[in-house]
Amino acid sequence: MTRTSGRRADELRKLTIIRHYTHHAEGSVLVEFGHTKVLCTASVEEKVPGFLKGKGRGWVTAEYGMLPRSTHTRSDREAAKGKQSGRTQEIQRLIGRSLRAVTDLAALGERQITLDCDVLQADGGTRCASITGACVALNDAITRLIAAGKLAANPLRDFVAAVSVGIVEGQAVLDLDYDEDSACDTDMNVVMTGSGGMVEVQGTAEGAPFSRQELDALLELAGNGIGQIIAVQKAALVAS
Amino acid sequence: MTRTSGRRADELRKLTIIRHYTHHAEGSVLVEFGHTKVLCTASVEEKVPGFLKGKGRGWVTAEYGMLPRSTHTRSDREAAKGKQSGRTQEIQRLIGRSLRAVTDLAALGERQITLDCDVLQADGGTRCASITGACVALNDAITRLIAAGKLAANPLRDFVAAVSVGIVEGQAVLDLDYDEDSACDTDMNVVMTGSGGMVEVQGTAEGAPFSRQELDALLELAGNGIGQIIAVQKAALVAS
Amino acid sequence: MTRTSGRRADELRKLTIIRHYTHHAEGSVLVEFGHTKVLCTASVEEKVPGFLKGKGRGWVTAEYGMLPRSTHTRSDREAAKGKQSGRTQEIQRLIGRSLRAVTDLAALGERQITLDCDVLQADGGTRCASITGACVALNDAITRLIAAGKLAANPLRDFVAAVSVGIVEGQAVLDLDYDEDSACDTDMNVVMTGSGGMVEVQGTAEGAPFSRQELDALLELAGNGIGQIIAVQKAALVAS
Amino acid sequence: MTRTSGRRADELRKLTIIRHYTHHAEGSVLVEFGHTKVLCTASVEEKVPGFLKGKGRGWVTAEYGMLPRSTHTRSDREAAKGKQSGRTQEIQRLIGRSLRAVTDLAALGERQITLDCDVLQADGGTRCASITGACVALNDAITRLIAAGKLAANPLRDFVAAVSVGIVEGQAVLDLDYDEDSACDTDMNVVMTGSGGMVEVQGTAEGAPFSRQELDALLELAGNGIGQIIAVQKAALVAS
Amino acid sequence: MTRTSGRRADELRKLTIIRHYTHHAEGSVLVEFGHTKVLCTASVEEKVPGFLKGKGRGWVTAEYGMLPRSTHTRSDREAAKGKQSGRTQEIQRLIGRSLRAVTDLAALGERQITLDCDVLQADGGTRCASITGACVALNDAITRLIAAGKLAANPLRDFVAAVSVGIVEGQAVLDLDYDEDSACDTDMNVVMTGSGGMVEVQGTAEGAPFSRQELDALLELAGNGIGQIIAVQKAALVAS
Amino acid sequence: MTRTSGRRADELRKLTIIRHYTHHAEGSVLVEFGHTKVLCTASVEEKVPGFLKGKGRGWVTAEYGMLPRSTHTRSDREAAKGKQSGRTQEIQRLIGRSLRAVTDLAALGERQITLDCDVLQADGGTRCASITGACVALNDAITRLIAAGKLAANPLRDFVAAVSVGIVEGQAVLDLDYDEDSACDTDMNVVMTGSGGMVEVQGTAEGAPFSRQELDALLELAGNGIGQIIAVQKAALVAS
Repeated sequence: MTRTSGRRADELRKLTIIRHYTHHAEGSVLVEFGHTKVLCTASVEEKVPGFLKGKGRGWVTAEYGMLPRSTHTRSDREAAKGKQSGRTQEIQRLIGRSLRAVTDLAALGERQITLDCDVLQADGGTRCASITGACVALNDAITRLIAAGKLAANPLRDFVAAVSVGIVEGQAVLDLDYDEDSACDTDMNVVMTGSGGMVEVQGTAEGAPFSRQELDALLELAGNGIGQIIAVQKAALVAS
Repeated sequence: MTRTSGRRADELRKLTIIRHYTHHAEGSVLVEFGHTKVLCTASVEEKVPGFLKGKGRGWVTAEYGMLPRSTHTRSDREAAKGKQSGRTQEIQRLIGRSLRAVTDLAALGERQITLDCDVLQADGGTRCASITGACVALNDAITRLIAAGKLAANPLRDFVAAVSVGIVEGQAVLDLDYDEDSACDTDMNVVMTGSGGMVEVQGTAEGAPFSRQELDALLELAGNGIGQIIAVQKAALVAS
Repeated sequence: MTRTSGRRADELRKLTIIRHYTHHAEGSVLVEFGHTKVLCTASVEEKVPGFLKGKGRGWVTAEYGMLPRSTHTRSDREAAKGKQSGRTQEIQRLIGRSLRAVTDLAALGERQITLDCDVLQADGGTRCASITGACVALNDAITRLIAAGKLAANPLRDFVAAVSVGIVEGQAVLDLDYDEDSACDTDMNVVMTGSGGMVEVQGTAEGAPFSRQELDALLELAGNGIGQIIAVQKAALVAS
Repeated sequence: MTRTSGRRADELRKLTIIRHYTHHAEGSVLVEFGHTKVLCTASVEEKVPGFLKGKGRGWVTAEYGMLPRSTHTRSDREAAKGKQSGRTQEIQRLIGRSLRAVTDLAALGERQITLDCDVLQADGGTRCASITGACVALNDAITRLIAAGKLAANPLRDFVAAVSVGIVEGQAVLDLDYDEDSACDTDMNVVMTGSGGMVEVQGTAEGAPFSRQELDALLELAGNGIGQIIAVQKAALVAS
Repeated sequence: MTRTSGRRADELRKLTIIRHYTHHAEGSVLVEFGHTKVLCTASVEEKVPGFLKGKGRGWVTAEYGMLPRSTHTRSDREAAKGKQSGRTQEIQRLIGRSLRAVTDLAALGERQITLDCDVLQADGGTRCASITGACVALNDAITRLIAAGKLAANPLRDFVAAVSVGIVEGQAVLDLDYDEDSACDTDMNVVMTGSGGMVEVQGTAEGAPFSRQELDALLELAGNGIGQIIAVQKAALVAS
Repeated sequence: MTRTSGRRADELRKLTIIRHYTHHAEGSVLVEFGHTKVLCTASVEEKVPGFLKGKGRGWVTAEYGMLPRSTHTRSDREAAKGKQSGRTQEIQRLIGRSLRAVTDLAALGERQITLDCDVLQADGGTRCASITGACVALNDAITRLIAAGKLAANPLRDFVAAVSVGIVEGQAVLDLDYDEDSACDTDMNVVMTGSGGMVEVQGTAEGAPFSRQELDALLELAGNGIGQIIAVQKAALVAS
């Protein structure tokens, strides 16, 4: 099979991570998976949500949004409609859980870091791009807290990144773009840490159910892909 | 390891499926996984959502809710708060996708079936119980449509059921109750068809990331559990 | 006149009160007036609403909901619509007032008891069934507080129950079912205490205005009906 | 007993009905029961709500609001809070039902008349004043429709008015002002037609339950009061 | 050019200011610019919004609303729709800013005065009438605070009033009524103080852009008009 | 006076206009006024709002939003809060009016163009940047419609741009950044066309009222600034 993009089945799109993309946030990263572009900012606040008050632990959370015309046809603005869609809420909950999985919340102290992931341009894989970019933005925000003497130790235990995989025309492929995502039979998002642990596996049969063999093939592709993505995250953070 | 319930690691809770639980709905099922009790009704409407109008296809969708005191401590009523939580939306989207995975929407014709899954009592696994009960309610509604001469052929291609599995104190266990769910490191919901195809796999590391070996063990448990659950669904449908 | 149900004009539907229907709530009652089934739970919280803070008094309040398919045709889920209807709010205010009318709020101490009345199946008279069942659930919750040594004296001064009456085809009848309720000229809900005091009288002319004589006949029927209903409440509470 | 206002137990407050108070509406009435002042406008629209489309019948409905500082202390503006309170909805449903009780909706034809009742100054009895004023505004709107040749016959079958009665310090009194309303044991709103038929009776025990004798005394007072109120309505309409 | 009202280009409509229009509010003014009638109440609360707590300064704010049938055809009630329109919010922000411009918030002390401006009848210029009337209501509320010994000095530094001006059929005219407002090319609202300082200038080209000469002519008209309006405010306040 | 930025009083910030910034929208412009960065997209839809249906005219409208961390400290996400602020609505109404002022809506035909202006980074003047960028995006969208043969003639009659001016420490200055905006006594936003006509003038006294002389000075500065801005718009459109 040839992918319309010309990519091999196990080939990622061009992945770019630009730090310090905007200048107010403690961490600000533009992440691009091919044509998918997401701005991820990390904002530190010296307070925690009500359910954590006085418990000596911090919190990491996320919000997600798509600009109305980040998509092929214009979507309604959620602020104008007065509510976030189920999809939006599902995605922002996933991003938050993924980042908390690599954060020692006790070591963070009583403060909250909010990751805002806003899609400037969408071409499939926005939730995976968000997790990937947010991890780098979170690193930058933590580094700044350490530099300011507010944290004794680094609460981040590992890197975390995500990629989508799917069965398209019977073949397992890595990092689906929008056209592939629309056409695939099975769509899976995998979130893993730098040491190869799994944080989230969300596989959905869009058409026919999938078999255990297909699941295995998808996980194999995803594991390799995430290894490459985390290498790009690390390189971006070295770059200063 | 002994589970607090005395169950073996691969043992389901007592599963009961009561059909015709209420009498207005075209399908009405009370499903119990141990102390978890969910009322699933199927409502047929001879119209489809706007995006399907005139396309000759039907739709199957779901809504989910918990009665305020179905839980250990009272939760706010979503109708009074004026919005459904992200968790609620995530679950009802999952239920809808799972049922559509076994339904031939073209064969259903231009009508919609809504599955309302309302939790009367919660003790873990409410989304899996909902999918399991909704499948039976949907069968009853379809049977009634066929009996009424409104459907030439049965649009249901297979059964579908769900179960939760997780890693509790280092061991993979089947069908977690609330206490196990609160204490587990990894929580996974698996949705499968009668013929063993996978429809949804949603695994989340609540504590430490999980390994590929753990994932494999969980899928093994889930597959066996779902086989037993689907047998109970079939027996319930035969019963009258 | 013969009622379609075969009941006499002054005859209640079969009334069943099942306590301990679910197990998390401090009081949990399934009440059935014929085919009308309402689950009433009482939840105790050791705090009061803002307007009562520090005043040494407690509060009793109620919320009401109908499952979407408790009715002949599916109603929209209020949580999904994002607001409770005027009817819902009217009913839950009525339930709360009725229960407060027999509760010594000072003797209750600074705690709140919330009665959630959720209609599983509707066939007319759901607000009256709710009040009737909630009274029993409230009794159970209070008994538990006394047993736990949290209350020195019983703050409940009396029983309270409700029934609907109406003029159907020119005749006053007791305890209307849905078909009678839809066809009646005058509909009245009466809430009374065990000692025969009136707590609420709400009569509405659905068709022609009603006369004083009709009102008198309706109140007579209601008084007798409530006497029987309170006897069933008492018997249920004795039962253990 | 002497009422603080100096009124006899069976004495209404000064009742004033000013027609044509504002000039855009088809009917516009300022009604004053003592210090309670409500502006009632009737707006005719040549369309009906969805559930009545094509049925050849009209609709009469009402909306109610209080200006934020119509009350002793400022209340939040419902438009700013984003929702109408349960009390507001209850009242506007009552006003609508009361007016429909004297309107032949088939004779009205497929059009809707909306009565907006906005409280400029509140001193008890605003819902009764609203019904009383809205009846006159509705008459004016109907008269205009007849004059315009849009109605062959008058769809109004009778007058309708309302008054509150209550038990204050053990005595039944007519037309409660705010201080009496706050202090009363039983509060009842009665809506009646010009020919003496009852449209709504809503009695509530605020303190102790009320007896049948008290109910009878209250209805007696209300009946006499409404007779006087309807005389004022008629006089106002004659005045031109 | 002759204006349809017969007014000269630089002539105000009849301006009436009635104080003490309702009796609960600390300031209550009915202001009429021709057929435009707005009820402006000032409510004093001994607390400030969260962002001012503990800062020793007060706050002056405003809310605005139109009764549904204050307009030619009925507008939806914002409380029923569940949100205030952009226009409403824009106007109430303008009123609040205009009044704060003449108030020494430090001298006011930690209290808030809310100006509620509710349009009873609309014929153009409601925002200008609101500012004009609210200024007088604010004066009355402040006078009452001083009389009660709660304020050492008067925090009001000046009067403030507003008027609309516009280019209608090529000519600059003062104080547009609804018909002129609908037909004008340029619409400008000007808010000025008693000493002639400008507080707000909001000019909008409804049709063709406007020139600097036109702007100058409009400001000239507005300045003269506001001088007359402030004279009426002063006269009203002297009147007692 | 020296401005903290080192700019002269009549000096604009560096102005950059990048077209084709994202690739789905019919027009997509990133506009930068110094550190203020706004993404403006134009989306064409072949339908008009309800009030224009069948009238043969088109519509141009705008929506505005700020990314949560476009500002110094994180602002709540409007989609999560469930409503747009008054400020947001005021700004998007202004942008829409400004663009309609230079568009021949009849020539546009029955289609709508929506300008989404999303602030990626805020440093004062976001509404002026939005208008300026949206004008270019609108040009690109129109050009595409003409190229596709959907428009016979260009409905754009002129360019439109905006700039803020203000009195800072007694001196009139052009194009305020955030620090100047926070410190200024008077803040004015001016919208003008390429031929020098005024479309909107919105001046607000933040501190002391402003005089006619100050207003004149501000308009002078704004006029010169807008001339330069429109030259940049034109150059950007020529560029490719």
